Amino acid sequence: MASVAQIAAQMKLESPVMAATPVEVRNAALVAVKEALLANSEAIFAANAADLAAAEADGVAPAVVKRLRFDEHKLADVCAGIDDTIALPDPVGRTLLARELDEGLTLYRVSCPIGVIGVIFEARPDALVQISTLCLKSGNCAVLKGGSETMRTNKALFDLIHAAAVAAGLPEGCLHQVEARSEISELLACDTAIDLLIPRGSNAFVRYIMDNTRIPVMGHSDGICHIYVDGAADVEKAVRICVDAKVQYTAACNAVETILVQRSAAPALLPEIVAGLQGEGVEVRGTDEVRAIVDCKPATDADWDTEYLALVVSIKLVEGVDEAVDHINRHGSHHTDAIITEDAAAAARFMQLVDSAGVYQNCSTRFADGFRYGFGAEVGISTSKLHARGPVGLEGLVTYKYKIFGSGQIVGDYASGASSFHFRDL
Amino acid sequence: MASVAQIAAQMKLESPVMAATPVEVRNAALVAVKEALLANSEAIFAANAADLAAAEADGVAPAVVKRLRFDEHKLADVCAGIDDTIALPDPVGRTLLARELDEGLTLYRVSCPIGVIGVIFEARPDALVQISTLCLKSGNCAVLKGGSETMRTNKALFDLIHAAAVAAGLPEGCLHQVEARSEISELLACDTAIDLLIPRGSNAFVRYIMDNTRIPVMGHSDGICHIYVDGAADVEKAVRICVDAKVQYTAACNAVETILVQRSAAPALLPEIVAGLQGEGVEVRGTDEVRAIVDCKPATDADWDTEYLALVVSIKLVEGVDEAVDHINRHGSHHTDAIITEDAAAAARFMQLVDSAGVYQNCSTRFADGFRYGFGAEVGISTSKLHARGPVGLEGLVTYKYKIFGSGQIVGDYASGASSFHFRDL
Repeated sequence: MASVAQIAAQMKLESPVMAATPVEVRNAALVAVKEALLANSEAIFAANAADLAAAEADGVAPAVVKRLRFDEHKLADVCAGIDDTIALPDPVGRTLLARELDEGLTLYRVSCPIGVIGVIFEARPDALVQISTLCLKSGNCAVLKGGSETMRTNKALFDLIHAAAVAAGLPEGCLHQVEARSEISELLACDTAIDLLIPRGSNAFVRYIMDNTRIPVMGHSDGICHIYVDGAADVEKAVRICVDAKVQYTAACNAVETILVQRSAAPALLPEIVAGLQGEGVEVRGTDEVRAIVDCKPATDADWDTEYLALVVSIKLVEGVDEAVDHINRHGSHHTDAIITEDAAAAARFMQLVDSAGVYQNCSTRFADGFRYGFGAEVGISTSKLHARGPVGLEGLVTYKYKIFGSGQIVGDYASGASSFHFRDL
Repeated sequence: MASVAQIAAQMKLESPVMAATPVEVRNAALVAVKEALLANSEAIFAANAADLAAAEADGVAPAVVKRLRFDEHKLADVCAGIDDTIALPDPVGRTLLARELDEGLTLYRVSCPIGVIGVIFEARPDALVQISTLCLKSGNCAVLKGGSETMRTNKALFDLIHAAAVAAGLPEGCLHQVEARSEISELLACDTAIDLLIPRGSNAFVRYIMDNTRIPVMGHSDGICHIYVDGAADVEKAVRICVDAKVQYTAACNAVETILVQRSAAPALLPEIVAGLQGEGVEVRGTDEVRAIVDCKPATDADWDTEYLALVVSIKLVEGVDEAVDHINRHGSHHTDAIITEDAAAAARFMQLVDSAGVYQNCSTRFADGFRYGFGAEVGISTSKLHARGPVGLEGLVTYKYKIFGSGQIVGDYASGASSFHFRDL
């Protein structure tokens, strides 16, 4: 059997062929994938039942087992996602720049797939479908490694997806699944064959990947999001948004961890905000100033740098926008931060100065999500500033190349002054 | 004195202020920089004379000493470059996407500076001016470390540039110069403060930087470029282009290292190409097939993976476009590769399948350069596929952030179905 390195190297050589496939073939492959999943749903569910039984036998916690489940409902979700992906415009082959450099010498910047993408993801079978179909749509080859708790479901889904894609006309080597956990380290070493790694999972896992490979990694390892409630906030909006951002999905990276409140308005704002949060069972931790106004637990310095991923929130008073910005840029993870205010100038200043992928006025930090941005599916959220930032959809899976069509031009003529550029955008 | 880590951390906190400066201030700063350089040219030249004298005393080779020189001619060049940079449109604050997600909930993707950029460059004083002015124009803070052979010139230039920028209204912390070689390792450790590193210099140096930091690195470590001469090539164009690509500036990363010739046309093409190259003093190395047609040295397998950076070229015969593509994708460095042919279909196939930042038809690989692409100055050429690929100008120094303006929206209402998105591009 071929090693991961051999498979990835072969995939690298085939990736230009994959990149050259017409969008009609890539879309037809997605249609075929959807049909294959629907036609073989019983076999998928049976594989999933075996995974669930094994997880229960292994004593996996019921909350985790729930995440492993792939049922009619999940199947309908992933099929709807495939339909959305088919409907999205082709991200490949778009002319991003067209310029005549000189008579008979034209430059084009054209979007193209990144090439070979490695995806290492948690035990969520729906993620396998979402990621592999996004890679196919964008003309990329992909090596997939899913969580081993759903290995039977992963295998059933992967085999169907791969067979459907190849039958529709995509290259045999467009997708490969890696099954053994030991193969992750082999994958991380394939830096000449794999162009981009996308890890999904816990912070510690993503950080481990980033620290153990020379392949560029797209992902984020922390989500410390803030809400700054300005003195000019509408109190009702502030309460609703703080509660939603904390409790609507507490384990999400875009949930709020720290609320900053303008000092001068704290006596009016704090009691309502804290009552709203505590009414939903949230543990509130505050500074001495906060505790002089409302009843809550004391916050320590460590709270400002903690992603709770739980029903806990820390609260601190600040003098105004500038102190809020300073706190957020020091302690945040550059993910998503919001200001609640009716003062447009305060909002503009906050949104200009906060150095995060998402800066919001008067809405919940939980909107940071590819689907909610209208990107269709997403491969993840990036807190990197390079390549893709924030929720990453198909656009994050393409790069570009420069094409020049000449008619015999040499640089010597431009260096000597015999020819000169005229740079005319077409 | 503050450590590099302290300076970078402070710069990180000031970078949002730098990012918020209006383009008028940034352009005024560039005008002030140019005037300061012109007004103080004698002091700069005196510093440079001291550097040159020290280099000669240290026994530095005359060819290298020449590169250290900063004279009237270089000053005129960098001032012309500053004028070009002033004339370029502002890369910051451009609205890249505007979408109404729902009534009263609008999303914008807006370009913004990357933040703090670390630049480590060879002993070329003109590079210091070029890079610092590109960073100022794009609203970035920068830590600069120039080659120590021109430390006196660097200091003279940097002090003038920094003072002029601050006098024009940019923040005190917009630029910092690091002078000791030992501080490079401190710089590489500043991964929470520095957003992007741009190393310029030898391949070994760039590779060293990439291997010793967690900061994203923009650059390239190899330039193994190819020319494929197709059977349908115009012989005269082929000769002119091969010679230009090899000899016009042999030490450049975009110079050609290997020429591939279609086997069926080799008896007609090879003698002319090889005569052209040898006439310019190029050492030609060929396979046995090549040597059966022309007189040259034998090539070994190592030649296909070697960047000569010298008057040496290797030649091999291939069956056609597909074998040329396979050779290039295996042995190339994904930099710039050209096809010489009058056959548009062959060119299209080659340019689709070669996985390089630049793919050219009928012109020299030496065109891979920011100035020649009409980008004004360049910070370097990237062979990475992420963020920026090929010659990188101002556009490569910006990222974007997402702004959402809401009116109290919470995600809970969209999850429950009480509200729904309508995604309307504005």
